[in-house]
Amino acid sequence: MDIATIVGTLVTVILILLAMETPSVFWNQPSLLIVVGGTLGATLIANPLAGVIGMVGIYKKAFITSKSSPHELIETIVGFAETARREGILALESAVEEANDPFISGGVRLAVDGTEPDLIMDILETELTYMEERHKTGVEFFSRMATMAPAFGMIGTLVGLVLMLGNMSDPAAIGPSMAVALLTTLYGSIMANVFFDPIAAKLKLYSTEEILAKKMVIEGIMAIQSGDNPRIVEHKLSVFLSPSLRPTSDDGEGGE
Amino acid sequence: MDIATIVGTLVTVILILLAMETPSVFWNQPSLLIVVGGTLGATLIANPLAGVIGMVGIYKKAFITSKSSPHELIETIVGFAETARREGILALESAVEEANDPFISGGVRLAVDGTEPDLIMDILETELTYMEERHKTGVEFFSRMATMAPAFGMIGTLVGLVLMLGNMSDPAAIGPSMAVALLTTLYGSIMANVFFDPIAAKLKLYSTEEILAKKMVIEGIMAIQSGDNPRIVEHKLSVFLSPSLRPTSDDGEGGE
Amino acid sequence: MDIATIVGTLVTVILILLAMETPSVFWNQPSLLIVVGGTLGATLIANPLAGVIGMVGIYKKAFITSKSSPHELIETIVGFAETARREGILALESAVEEANDPFISGGVRLAVDGTEPDLIMDILETELTYMEERHKTGVEFFSRMATMAPAFGMIGTLVGLVLMLGNMSDPAAIGPSMAVALLTTLYGSIMANVFFDPIAAKLKLYSTEEILAKKMVIEGIMAIQSGDNPRIVEHKLSVFLSPSLRPTSDDGEGGE
Amino acid sequence: MDIATIVGTLVTVILILLAMETPSVFWNQPSLLIVVGGTLGATLIANPLAGVIGMVGIYKKAFITSKSSPHELIETIVGFAETARREGILALESAVEEANDPFISGGVRLAVDGTEPDLIMDILETELTYMEERHKTGVEFFSRMATMAPAFGMIGTLVGLVLMLGNMSDPAAIGPSMAVALLTTLYGSIMANVFFDPIAAKLKLYSTEEILAKKMVIEGIMAIQSGDNPRIVEHKLSVFLSPSLRPTSDDGEGGE
Amino acid sequence: MDIATIVGTLVTVILILLAMETPSVFWNQPSLLIVVGGTLGATLIANPLAGVIGMVGIYKKAFITSKSSPHELIETIVGFAETARREGILALESAVEEANDPFISGGVRLAVDGTEPDLIMDILETELTYMEERHKTGVEFFSRMATMAPAFGMIGTLVGLVLMLGNMSDPAAIGPSMAVALLTTLYGSIMANVFFDPIAAKLKLYSTEEILAKKMVIEGIMAIQSGDNPRIVEHKLSVFLSPSLRPTSDDGEGGE
Repeated sequence: MDIATIVGTLVTVILILLAMETPSVFWNQPSLLIVVGGTLGATLIANPLAGVIGMVGIYKKAFITSKSSPHELIETIVGFAETARREGILALESAVEEANDPFISGGVRLAVDGTEPDLIMDILETELTYMEERHKTGVEFFSRMATMAPAFGMIGTLVGLVLMLGNMSDPAAIGPSMAVALLTTLYGSIMANVFFDPIAAKLKLYSTEEILAKKMVIEGIMAIQSGDNPRIVEHKLSVFLSPSLRPTSDDGEGGE
Repeated sequence: MDIATIVGTLVTVILILLAMETPSVFWNQPSLLIVVGGTLGATLIANPLAGVIGMVGIYKKAFITSKSSPHELIETIVGFAETARREGILALESAVEEANDPFISGGVRLAVDGTEPDLIMDILETELTYMEERHKTGVEFFSRMATMAPAFGMIGTLVGLVLMLGNMSDPAAIGPSMAVALLTTLYGSIMANVFFDPIAAKLKLYSTEEILAKKMVIEGIMAIQSGDNPRIVEHKLSVFLSPSLRPTSDDGEGGE
Repeated sequence: MDIATIVGTLVTVILILLAMETPSVFWNQPSLLIVVGGTLGATLIANPLAGVIGMVGIYKKAFITSKSSPHELIETIVGFAETARREGILALESAVEEANDPFISGGVRLAVDGTEPDLIMDILETELTYMEERHKTGVEFFSRMATMAPAFGMIGTLVGLVLMLGNMSDPAAIGPSMAVALLTTLYGSIMANVFFDPIAAKLKLYSTEEILAKKMVIEGIMAIQSGDNPRIVEHKLSVFLSPSLRPTSDDGEGGE
Repeated sequence: MDIATIVGTLVTVILILLAMETPSVFWNQPSLLIVVGGTLGATLIANPLAGVIGMVGIYKKAFITSKSSPHELIETIVGFAETARREGILALESAVEEANDPFISGGVRLAVDGTEPDLIMDILETELTYMEERHKTGVEFFSRMATMAPAFGMIGTLVGLVLMLGNMSDPAAIGPSMAVALLTTLYGSIMANVFFDPIAAKLKLYSTEEILAKKMVIEGIMAIQSGDNPRIVEHKLSVFLSPSLRPTSDDGEGGE
Repeated sequence: MDIATIVGTLVTVILILLAMETPSVFWNQPSLLIVVGGTLGATLIANPLAGVIGMVGIYKKAFITSKSSPHELIETIVGFAETARREGILALESAVEEANDPFISGGVRLAVDGTEPDLIMDILETELTYMEERHKTGVEFFSRMATMAPAFGMIGTLVGLVLMLGNMSDPAAIGPSMAVALLTTLYGSIMANVFFDPIAAKLKLYSTEEILAKKMVIEGIMAIQSGDNPRIVEHKLSVFLSPSLRPTSDDGEGGE
């Protein structure tokens, strides 16, 4: 559960609704149709069908992912290092079954199988590279929607303006017609700045964190494989963290 | 046949036509001429003649390409690896004739001919680099058209506004004149956001997928050449895929 | 205390207040709420909760950081080099306790412990890389706020315009209603161009300076570790500085 | 003679003139002066005098360059390879005199002189790097003009608007004054989107093609120098081309 | 003395003044104060105090720098190479005193002192890297001012519009009030497009040229150090130049 995403979305939506005073004035189905539909249509053109469907799942991730702590990760890996030290690397075979991260278990299994260090490194880094690539696709998907929505908002407004300007016989209707014409621009802006752009940013952040975690796992497995002392493994992994977050750091150095 | 491109284009065009209420109001030949003609003219200045003509074919690709599945590709390559293991690498000479991808057959032929691994790698990667370069040219072509169209839309609107402002004797004509002036901006926006920009995005995606496939082919040929076990070949290729798409993955891990 | 940040903020705010003639006209609580609240909400969506809270501390940094001089840093390191030359590298153990920069003391301790030069280099550079990464997160946080604020300013203005256009019965009210509608755009611009964008720039600058300092420390520790003459250490470090700032440069070459 | 540049410019200019109905309305010398003069002035500030003068020649290139075919280039190099194979590398000394490309003749001469392969590579690649650098300067020159022209168009329009707004005693004059004010924006847009931006794009394309050709020359000379079979030289060079353009490709694979 | 900068600035300023017809209409002290002061204030927030002060000197550079010719540089270095060849490298000790470029004299002195080639390379390239970094800081400073000025121009215009819209009792005052409101946008545009953006471009160009010159110096010193023949030194350096500028090139190949 990502509290920040949920609270942020609620706060923003409520504030916009409050500003609208009478939200019903801002509801116009045809306007909504052209912006939402146009954005969706252009998204279909720009992406494969399967990708578009899969993105619904990715979108939800920004709301329900519960961040795994890097400290737990360090503990897990240091635990493996201790087991390997004490009982030999083969003892990890059973320990790894408990790890619910397939990346860790896959990597440890490679080490247990006696695979060459270079090959382990190579396999894990290739996997990391393509995971990074897939994450980038997700982030770009929503970034693209964030630029599409205002574009279709502007197309809707232009259509509305042309209709209004072509028929100005009733001066009293000009104001309301123009209000309706502007609605699509408003819809496009809200979609971009509340529902797409910040979600793309959050997904990018998750990606960065997951890549960092995977790099820690790779570093850890290489260290275990070469028989490093568990303390050294811990030290090697802690440099990935902000000084204030390191297990050995006692002072409150502040967020940095 | 790329269903997503076709459906997406239809949906977007129909929604825009619906929003226009009476589409005939939005039809103005001179306006269309300056935006389409200007965009085309500027495209000719910016590109070689042959390139512009070839782009028609590239454009169609976004509608008719049928994605080849990475699973089939892995199967093909693992099949080759099995043949090579069982009957020796020379046996691939006949097998390769069936492959309808000149990149695979070219690469396998190099391996069959006993070319040095480094040279095979070098030749295939050079070919990949220049394929990537050519794809980039196509993507940039339509990205450029997507920025050209709104620019000529604005030029048309400015021309219309100057004509209207210079002749305001009839107040009743101001509205319709301005409506016409805005049409070019509308045309430019629709061209960019429906016909050029999302197509550029789709072509970029195809390029990414094709590059990934080619990289899998290179990895596969190198593995076959060095006599790898077919299972290892399959494992090496599956890391290119999302965990949920891997042949050995049984759980539905979601789109990621 | 960063005088420039404080003076710059004061000057800009006072000038804007002066231009407003009667600032009370420019105060509108609902307008402020949607811009500040929307920007904050979108920030929450785009970032982890802990990150948003930590950013308050980072923001203050732009006001209270007192730049450490690179000359002092060179002096400290050259002092260590002299101690190491005269009394052996082990003598640094006590000297390092005085250094209040954990990066220096950590690095020197590694050297004192007789760690392999390559490993020292590796550990310190990994630490530097992730510090750089964390700094980039901070800079991007405020850059993002600087693009969010005007976006919510525009959303507010669109909401205001739609409300105004839908209710134009009283012509005298049009002017003031439009004035209020424009306020959110004004708020967004001021937030972006006074409070977020320049702060992001200053934090980026601090980051650049701190990275440079850390690189000097790494270079210095490697030189001390390999037993370099203190004069050579000083020379090696001085190339990091602008010629006009180097200790050995006597001429006033100008800022460059 | 680059037909595409010439036809493209003619088409665009004629279409814009047609849209203007009575082009004389769009002619305003002071407006033209501020946009053209301002763009030129800012170009002078941003570039060295000699560079600005030299750019006239570069500009003409986009109209008069006749593309050399990569096939001819491959033929020339393969011809050299055959001569070198048959009569020894020294025989290239006379053959090279006919080559009217100083890059080829310079490179071949280095090979004939028995220069070390690494040094040949190094010299030719340094030359290529700096040629690339010079091309980039030309492309950026016209890209910059393409952003300058609309900026001075906007400055002109602002000046015109301020003049008009300060003197609105005659309502009938407002329309025409505003028309004149808009002219500078129109001029700036046309200059950018017809005369500068697409030319920058064409020059960039020429540069890419020339760099590709030079890379083929370097690859070819290295192959000749190492005594490669002319068929292998041809094969090595053909991978630089799109499959559909390769000499050995018989099928019409389409533009790709 | 950079004639181009001076002439360009004069031409642009005079043309803008001419377009203004009665420049006094365009003079408004409070408007000027908010744009100039706000830009300066935001610059202070974004930069260290010392940096802002030093930038005055950098700004002047764009007007008074007299470009040193790369030919003279080649001559100087080839002269050193001849001296080194004829009288031994130690003879450069006195020759170098005449060189008024500390980078050359520093580098030559390192060679004379018998420093290891790798170390010379390392020291000179580190120095080059940080010079590049410092130049980039200067270019970014003025680029940032070029984006700040229009931002404060828009803030000023918004403030003016809100004031005007809130007080529309006197219709005759609307035009002039709006004219004044637009002045800040005009000021911001002129500042950006005449005084900041082109200057940033010129400084970037100087930087590129200086880096090229420094690279030639490094290449030259390495060649002298390894005892190269002065003709070879000249040849190695001439590849840095455009073919038409090379000492040995007799044909007028055009600016390229």
